[in-house]
Amino acid sequence: MEPSELAALHTRLQALGATVAVAESLTGGLVTAALTETPGASATVRGGLVVYATELKAVLAGVDVSLLELRGAVDPEVATELARGARLRLGATIGIGVTGVAGPDPQDGQPVGTVFVAATTERSARVEEWHLDGDRAAVRAGAVAVCLDLLADVADELAEARGLAGES
Amino acid sequence: MEPSELAALHTRLQALGATVAVAESLTGGLVTAALTETPGASATVRGGLVVYATELKAVLAGVDVSLLELRGAVDPEVATELARGARLRLGATIGIGVTGVAGPDPQDGQPVGTVFVAATTERSARVEEWHLDGDRAAVRAGAVAVCLDLLADVADELAEARGLAGES
Repeated sequence: MEPSELAALHTRLQALGATVAVAESLTGGLVTAALTETPGASATVRGGLVVYATELKAVLAGVDVSLLELRGAVDPEVATELARGARLRLGATIGIGVTGVAGPDPQDGQPVGTVFVAATTERSARVEEWHLDGDRAAVRAGAVAVCLDLLADVADELAEARGLAGES
Repeated sequence: MEPSELAALHTRLQALGATVAVAESLTGGLVTAALTETPGASATVRGGLVVYATELKAVLAGVDVSLLELRGAVDPEVATELARGARLRLGATIGIGVTGVAGPDPQDGQPVGTVFVAATTERSARVEEWHLDGDRAAVRAGAVAVCLDLLADVADELAEARGLAGES
């Protein structure tokens, strides 16, 4: 997402009175870093949890330990619970969760490039599965991009739910 | 820090059996993101807290609320408490904390470019004050660089404490 698009997304969130929090794994902080590039981001960004070690997904973001044991860290439900945990624990309107395999090696039975991104609000939960190409840096950058696009979609949904015109 | 230097730092930490966790504010996730650029970073990086909203410095990292009220978020003791909170709450050998003013506006009575970085271990605490030049992106990038340099210094200290040869 270009800086101007990102600034427009912040403006849109602020008009909705909405804030965002992130729980991220393979991106290691890049999603929250992208969101805070924009001057004045503190009006909309609460913060983030970088749950790189698998157990921290449970400890910090509240992901069910049994779910992590059964399915591993790279799983759509884990992404959804990360989003929910970020939203609740950081006190935000929208939670974003992302987990996946940046490489160079496969993880938890999933190939490099597999990424699950989720967004939750008080009333909704969405999760997407992506298979991104490229090396470690490319997969991480691609995962950031899909997170920001998903956040923009959720902002549209919130606007529509409130009877405001949705802009993409 | 160049990718090769960062990889060497990870190798050095791993040889020491040391792990790292971060609590960061103005850098918005960039410190933890830099640490996780290196393949195999999961052996040494636990994760991070992006405590962008001031109250999250207390809620997530355990910084004293009275300290935040008295001194504001941009303060050397706040940086030290962020480092301590990251280390304890994420279960790492070394905690890194960073708080400062990325701009474009001053914050809590401190000018743009003021940055406090801290590192704590079980036995030590260090904090540094920096005054970085440039725009928002430059201040954030500069803050990441000083955090990584501080982490390298602490790795040297740990190695010396254990009677291993320190390498810079």
